[in-house]
Amino acid sequence: MNNDPALQQDDTKKTWSGRFNEPVSALVERYTASVSFDQRLTEYDIQGSLAHAQMLAEQGIISAADLTAIQQGMQQIRDEIRNHQFVWLQELEDVHLNIEKRLTALVGDAGKRLHTGRSRNDQVATDIRLFLRTAIDEIISLIKAMQHALLSLAEQHIHTIMPGFTHLQVAQPVSFGHHLMAYFEMLKRDVERLTDCRKRVNQLPLGAAALAGTSYPINRERVAQLLDFEAVCQNSLDAVSDRDFAIEFSACAALIMTHLSRMSEEFILWMNPAFGFIQLADRFCTGSSIMPQKKNPDVPELVRGKTGRVNGHLVALLTLMKAQPLAYNKDNQEDKEPLFDTVDTLTDTLRIYADMLGGVRVNQETMRASALRGYATATDLADYLVKKGIPFRDAHEIVAKAVQFAEQKGCDLSKLELNELQQFSIQIESDIFAVLTLEGSMNSRNHTGGTAPEQVQAAIQKAKAWLPWKM
Amino acid sequence: MNNDPALQQDDTKKTWSGRFNEPVSALVERYTASVSFDQRLTEYDIQGSLAHAQMLAEQGIISAADLTAIQQGMQQIRDEIRNHQFVWLQELEDVHLNIEKRLTALVGDAGKRLHTGRSRNDQVATDIRLFLRTAIDEIISLIKAMQHALLSLAEQHIHTIMPGFTHLQVAQPVSFGHHLMAYFEMLKRDVERLTDCRKRVNQLPLGAAALAGTSYPINRERVAQLLDFEAVCQNSLDAVSDRDFAIEFSACAALIMTHLSRMSEEFILWMNPAFGFIQLADRFCTGSSIMPQKKNPDVPELVRGKTGRVNGHLVALLTLMKAQPLAYNKDNQEDKEPLFDTVDTLTDTLRIYADMLGGVRVNQETMRASALRGYATATDLADYLVKKGIPFRDAHEIVAKAVQFAEQKGCDLSKLELNELQQFSIQIESDIFAVLTLEGSMNSRNHTGGTAPEQVQAAIQKAKAWLPWKM
Amino acid sequence: MNNDPALQQDDTKKTWSGRFNEPVSALVERYTASVSFDQRLTEYDIQGSLAHAQMLAEQGIISAADLTAIQQGMQQIRDEIRNHQFVWLQELEDVHLNIEKRLTALVGDAGKRLHTGRSRNDQVATDIRLFLRTAIDEIISLIKAMQHALLSLAEQHIHTIMPGFTHLQVAQPVSFGHHLMAYFEMLKRDVERLTDCRKRVNQLPLGAAALAGTSYPINRERVAQLLDFEAVCQNSLDAVSDRDFAIEFSACAALIMTHLSRMSEEFILWMNPAFGFIQLADRFCTGSSIMPQKKNPDVPELVRGKTGRVNGHLVALLTLMKAQPLAYNKDNQEDKEPLFDTVDTLTDTLRIYADMLGGVRVNQETMRASALRGYATATDLADYLVKKGIPFRDAHEIVAKAVQFAEQKGCDLSKLELNELQQFSIQIESDIFAVLTLEGSMNSRNHTGGTAPEQVQAAIQKAKAWLPWKM
Amino acid sequence: MNNDPALQQDDTKKTWSGRFNEPVSALVERYTASVSFDQRLTEYDIQGSLAHAQMLAEQGIISAADLTAIQQGMQQIRDEIRNHQFVWLQELEDVHLNIEKRLTALVGDAGKRLHTGRSRNDQVATDIRLFLRTAIDEIISLIKAMQHALLSLAEQHIHTIMPGFTHLQVAQPVSFGHHLMAYFEMLKRDVERLTDCRKRVNQLPLGAAALAGTSYPINRERVAQLLDFEAVCQNSLDAVSDRDFAIEFSACAALIMTHLSRMSEEFILWMNPAFGFIQLADRFCTGSSIMPQKKNPDVPELVRGKTGRVNGHLVALLTLMKAQPLAYNKDNQEDKEPLFDTVDTLTDTLRIYADMLGGVRVNQETMRASALRGYATATDLADYLVKKGIPFRDAHEIVAKAVQFAEQKGCDLSKLELNELQQFSIQIESDIFAVLTLEGSMNSRNHTGGTAPEQVQAAIQKAKAWLPWKM
Repeated sequence: MNNDPALQQDDTKKTWSGRFNEPVSALVERYTASVSFDQRLTEYDIQGSLAHAQMLAEQGIISAADLTAIQQGMQQIRDEIRNHQFVWLQELEDVHLNIEKRLTALVGDAGKRLHTGRSRNDQVATDIRLFLRTAIDEIISLIKAMQHALLSLAEQHIHTIMPGFTHLQVAQPVSFGHHLMAYFEMLKRDVERLTDCRKRVNQLPLGAAALAGTSYPINRERVAQLLDFEAVCQNSLDAVSDRDFAIEFSACAALIMTHLSRMSEEFILWMNPAFGFIQLADRFCTGSSIMPQKKNPDVPELVRGKTGRVNGHLVALLTLMKAQPLAYNKDNQEDKEPLFDTVDTLTDTLRIYADMLGGVRVNQETMRASALRGYATATDLADYLVKKGIPFRDAHEIVAKAVQFAEQKGCDLSKLELNELQQFSIQIESDIFAVLTLEGSMNSRNHTGGTAPEQVQAAIQKAKAWLPWKM
Repeated sequence: MNNDPALQQDDTKKTWSGRFNEPVSALVERYTASVSFDQRLTEYDIQGSLAHAQMLAEQGIISAADLTAIQQGMQQIRDEIRNHQFVWLQELEDVHLNIEKRLTALVGDAGKRLHTGRSRNDQVATDIRLFLRTAIDEIISLIKAMQHALLSLAEQHIHTIMPGFTHLQVAQPVSFGHHLMAYFEMLKRDVERLTDCRKRVNQLPLGAAALAGTSYPINRERVAQLLDFEAVCQNSLDAVSDRDFAIEFSACAALIMTHLSRMSEEFILWMNPAFGFIQLADRFCTGSSIMPQKKNPDVPELVRGKTGRVNGHLVALLTLMKAQPLAYNKDNQEDKEPLFDTVDTLTDTLRIYADMLGGVRVNQETMRASALRGYATATDLADYLVKKGIPFRDAHEIVAKAVQFAEQKGCDLSKLELNELQQFSIQIESDIFAVLTLEGSMNSRNHTGGTAPEQVQAAIQKAKAWLPWKM
Repeated sequence: MNNDPALQQDDTKKTWSGRFNEPVSALVERYTASVSFDQRLTEYDIQGSLAHAQMLAEQGIISAADLTAIQQGMQQIRDEIRNHQFVWLQELEDVHLNIEKRLTALVGDAGKRLHTGRSRNDQVATDIRLFLRTAIDEIISLIKAMQHALLSLAEQHIHTIMPGFTHLQVAQPVSFGHHLMAYFEMLKRDVERLTDCRKRVNQLPLGAAALAGTSYPINRERVAQLLDFEAVCQNSLDAVSDRDFAIEFSACAALIMTHLSRMSEEFILWMNPAFGFIQLADRFCTGSSIMPQKKNPDVPELVRGKTGRVNGHLVALLTLMKAQPLAYNKDNQEDKEPLFDTVDTLTDTLRIYADMLGGVRVNQETMRASALRGYATATDLADYLVKKGIPFRDAHEIVAKAVQFAEQKGCDLSKLELNELQQFSIQIESDIFAVLTLEGSMNSRNHTGGTAPEQVQAAIQKAKAWLPWKM
Repeated sequence: MNNDPALQQDDTKKTWSGRFNEPVSALVERYTASVSFDQRLTEYDIQGSLAHAQMLAEQGIISAADLTAIQQGMQQIRDEIRNHQFVWLQELEDVHLNIEKRLTALVGDAGKRLHTGRSRNDQVATDIRLFLRTAIDEIISLIKAMQHALLSLAEQHIHTIMPGFTHLQVAQPVSFGHHLMAYFEMLKRDVERLTDCRKRVNQLPLGAAALAGTSYPINRERVAQLLDFEAVCQNSLDAVSDRDFAIEFSACAALIMTHLSRMSEEFILWMNPAFGFIQLADRFCTGSSIMPQKKNPDVPELVRGKTGRVNGHLVALLTLMKAQPLAYNKDNQEDKEPLFDTVDTLTDTLRIYADMLGGVRVNQETMRASALRGYATATDLADYLVKKGIPFRDAHEIVAKAVQFAEQKGCDLSKLELNELQQFSIQIESDIFAVLTLEGSMNSRNHTGGTAPEQVQAAIQKAKAWLPWKM
């Protein structure tokens, strides 16, 4: 173990500087270094190195003593990092070389043997996949927590009636629980997408070395087993150069944010006093520095805004990979920051959303009142006529005229007199008034996926069966 | 059956015009109509209608006679469309109403009953899913055809040596077959992604009606069975309003194009006379209107360019869905054109690529000569030293100095004298010269995913087993 | 003049086929041809050719007789195109060769001389710039028409009070005219941006030939003068290969659509019955195929959706140009369709918007009532206290408590008793009630850019002075 | 002046908490706070506050004593920040409130009066515009520095011949200086675009207050004058809510990066040994951790990759603004990070590029040799024939056949015997051999924008006149 200044200086020498006549300039060093952001991969880098070293020892490529030294050195490095004693050096470029140099300072030649049979190209690809696999698992678990919160709210509001909108115009009365369950379905697909994506993330690139594999008798399947990868990447050039798994993840992330942006848009609308459907708990709102009365739905607004950020990162990654020749190019260093920020945005957003849903207060009376504006049961009148034998298209026409009449009179269809309704069709009888109620309309949509409370109840049960997870 | 002019005129009346006081203006009609592009959904629209009608009849919602009339009418409409006799009218807005109006003209009231228990909202969602499911199947089959062509070319070039590049600098010698197989792997993941996406596309929205379901006793599972959907969408609001399946498909498409853009970039480079690695068959090239000597790789250039188009469509769809409140909004009409163009771009591109690969002529000597520039076997010298006990980092440093020496002398490492090499390490012996050959280097990378011909051969066998499809 | 079949066949021979051994395959021909969409450049192509020919004649490069023949031939081609008699052939690839071949068929060798000293590379760049210059002029004129419509509506509503929102929560009362004038300002910047962009579009690339210029003694400045370009492109390689002017235009277009998407979002909100601020004329709305009561704001919804399309095209063009080496690459053929569609989307959208604004019916009472919800004058109470000497931050705190009190009482601040108000600050006197009215609040914001009617009136006058254009 | 703990605690109370019953949760606080990144606006925030305070005092809205206290307090805050003594608190949300609270702690009530007549909405809009104006000025100056470096390199290589490419195939010989000047032109347009954008950035929003203006007798023109804005924003709602100026800047930035990505692509190609046109100075390259011979063009690769990042930020901002209703929404807080990162990416990239250009070593002989492959003077032969009276199209065909003949013979056109050439046209005479040299071809393109050295010299002179700036 040696900490004398000479060796320290040596420690910062580039690992590849042997053939260079001129040192890298300070600006270039900063521009090309990734250690300021890829530090974040530390734990995965160490895990990967330990598995690699173990395999090397098992294959007889390094000695058992070297392995032990590497393991002890890595343990110390982990401790140093945890205790914020580790000194990250920009001149050592990246997380890999910072750790390797420190390891060599701690354990000598064994440290210099660690990089046998690998390259930073396959090493960083391994780190990112380990990072992303962990991130996906956490995101899935956060989505499920949010789905729990949705389910819990939906269950309270199976019978709460709100106006269902199309074109933001009142369409038909729906169960508020049913409305919430639409988001459950979206998030369920998001979980499935992430699960599918995880399979492609969870493939081991290590062993591809720089681009072509290595001449040492390595055992990639063993490394995969140690690191819990499902399989090894089958082509070394592909393994070090493609980032499609990261782009696939980003696309999944963009869809999650898109779904949340839709819910956020609705929350913002519903908080507007003209709607007044819900209140968010104060702790999810902020005020104004100038207008003393304000209570702003900042969280959903920010979520809506952050959709742009995640979409932007997806475009960044797609642009990055466009027309890159094989194999690894330095361009790929630019994959990390968009990915890290996407993961952070998602985890924060999902966490806050699950929490926020617990604080939603529903103004049932206001919702119901709102459903009474806009002739929400007009379709039910048409369906009533169809059941009396009138072709749907003709029934539609009849009801359109009745609505026009009611509009001029300034009242809902259900408030017209029977004889007024009969002007439009003599087949309308007094049983029509049950049909024209909000409950009559809602209850009648009683099939898989429909808004009838019975169906919403069934959907919630199915959802619970799919989501066996406890908060 | 009635074709008199009065009824014809009636035929163009909007199906929803009953409550409107003023006709839609011509510009508005053109702006809001989709029939100019959604005609393309005709066959799917008819399929969906027939399944819906059959279910309605089975459930007793329409009569058997109505069903027969609808079936006969639809058959005639199919024939009219096939024979280009069908008159599409912009004032009938979309493919759905054009067909329904014609059906009603042909079969009377039965036609007016077809729309019972559904809405254009769930109808169009069904059409798009049927269209996209078919498109995915075709695209998968085209990718596999391209993979066949890749395999066939790779198999011929297992032993062909090319310079493997990183940073577009010569890195290590690789098998050209191995290089081609990297693209096989990318395309394999693309197939897997599309297969995963197809599950989410293949869910039936029909029965969601406008947004809330319908009051008729429909049987959605029966319709799903008739149309070969795997399941029914579980929430009506979600069914009519989300387009995440289309965005997921677009993201898959962007990745496919990204992969092809990379191959195209390489083909363009390889066609450049400084590289001269390959020639494309004349039929895939075009000339210049001014420079008589030109033979331009137009096809790969266009493929590279069309990546932008497909990425753009993905952004269009994500932007479209951002912050849309539930349920259906007219914005969603904008989903079709990007999707259609993405499908067309992919099918044309894949078809042309599979064909083009068959016409690639490889200049093996030029490739080999190129691998001899750039000290491609320097890593092998380092690995040789490691096997003699020198830690990798020290070996790396030694070789860097040897490369610098050879560079000044203007020759490859393999052309140095033994005593020159021994200046850098006395552990270098005469067996080094076998190590420093291109074949020595390539053959030594002999593990899963490595470039050794034995491994490439094995990879090709695995690929053939995965791809049991015959051209 | 010869139309015999033999010559017709010859007419379709590629202009560059001399050195090729194999014809282009049908799929390749379709894939690489642009004539299906670049036909649209016909008029610009002819204009450019005529100016080029005139310069060639003036410089003595072609004879006066050749010029006359070309001019006559082009006139006939124009007529043929206008009369739909022109036969476009895909095997002639593009608009340029279709026209040139026809010209040669019509006028013989003079036609073959037209391409002297130019290439399709500079020719197509010239065509696109002419097209885009014309499109920009039309778009500017359509924006101004829309601004006229805005001004006219704003002028009627200088004194109409609506609730100004921040975070979609009621903030302060504003003049509806003032609100509309915000969009006037956005559109004014859009006009300025397009005007700036036009300068960079309006530079002549012709004369750059393939990439390096030409050996003929051409006079580019003369061609620029004939075609009304402001200057000639100063570097031939740049002239044929960059498309930054098109991307700049696309970015301007994306901003215009973004502005219109915001207005559309508001129109959709305002049409919702909970808001009920406006009605759009029936001719801008459509109905539902299933719900007879619906009147949907389809036009603003589509405009909002089409924002995605235009953003997508911008991404397509940026992706297209990323990392293209000099000079012209075939990738660039992909610039046209996104550009054409962007222009069409903008012109249609602006035209329909200007028209739609004329049909907006404002529900002034509903707007006013809505402004009374949400404590819109709370800031005015704080400002009142500040004027009495209380520091703003303390005043803000006092008012926040008063709002909380009023909220619990369920009334507006202006409905509190004086002694209730005085509980929060003894400096509140009876003159406070004028301050707390909507008019008091609105009128007091009386400085440049403020919502006081006096200022709105002034802004409208300034706007009229800037917009001296008559509809 | 009071620093006791009680007051410190009070200092962290939200400025808007008066009406809230529940504190903001820790996660929400972190999620909604911007101080972690908007600290960067500190200097602009102070500048804006000082100008605002001065105007308030001049208008008699605050006292002269208050102004002095504010000025002194701000001076101390500046010092504290410079000396890293300032304590930023996340619970104070943003840069504005952190500074205001500290000011109030330092100077008491005067601090509480600073926010009179403004809101954070107009304050932050002012800060961003001040930041962006400064950034634009620096970026313009960095572009010009890079243009200086380009000019200097171009001037050395006016007579250096390289193969001009189209479709990456050899097209015609061009001056390397001419090639470099293409990038000068692109960057010149980038400067012009930024200059145009700056006009729209440089408009004062302050005084718009929350959204409607303020009831104090403010003088916005005076603030504009103090802060060197060209004008005041003419509509308060627009002033606080639009970010089109930032999007316009981002689009300019994306074009700059696109231009640099093209140059980077070329540098990477030219560094490849098959090309071998240039060497970059060692200090702009890095090595490999595994391959000792590697010298990688990391800087151009990263620049190419960072294009994705900047394009992504543009998409983020466009997505952010899509369909936002007026006026300010919290979404807009998301404008800062993309903007900051865009500015940083551009300034670093431009700085490194200007420096890197100074270290380019050109291999003139390799370039020249490369121009001799690919029949670069074939067009000159065609032009020669045209000058002898053969129509261009026929000449093109003749030369195509001659190229095919030379290709079979394996030599350049200039190496054919006269009698061989005359097989294709008897009009070819012995003067053809001067035409077929690289210099003959290059020198003949002698018109504005052409590659003849005389023209390149002239272009460099014009460029110098436009760029009167000294490094």
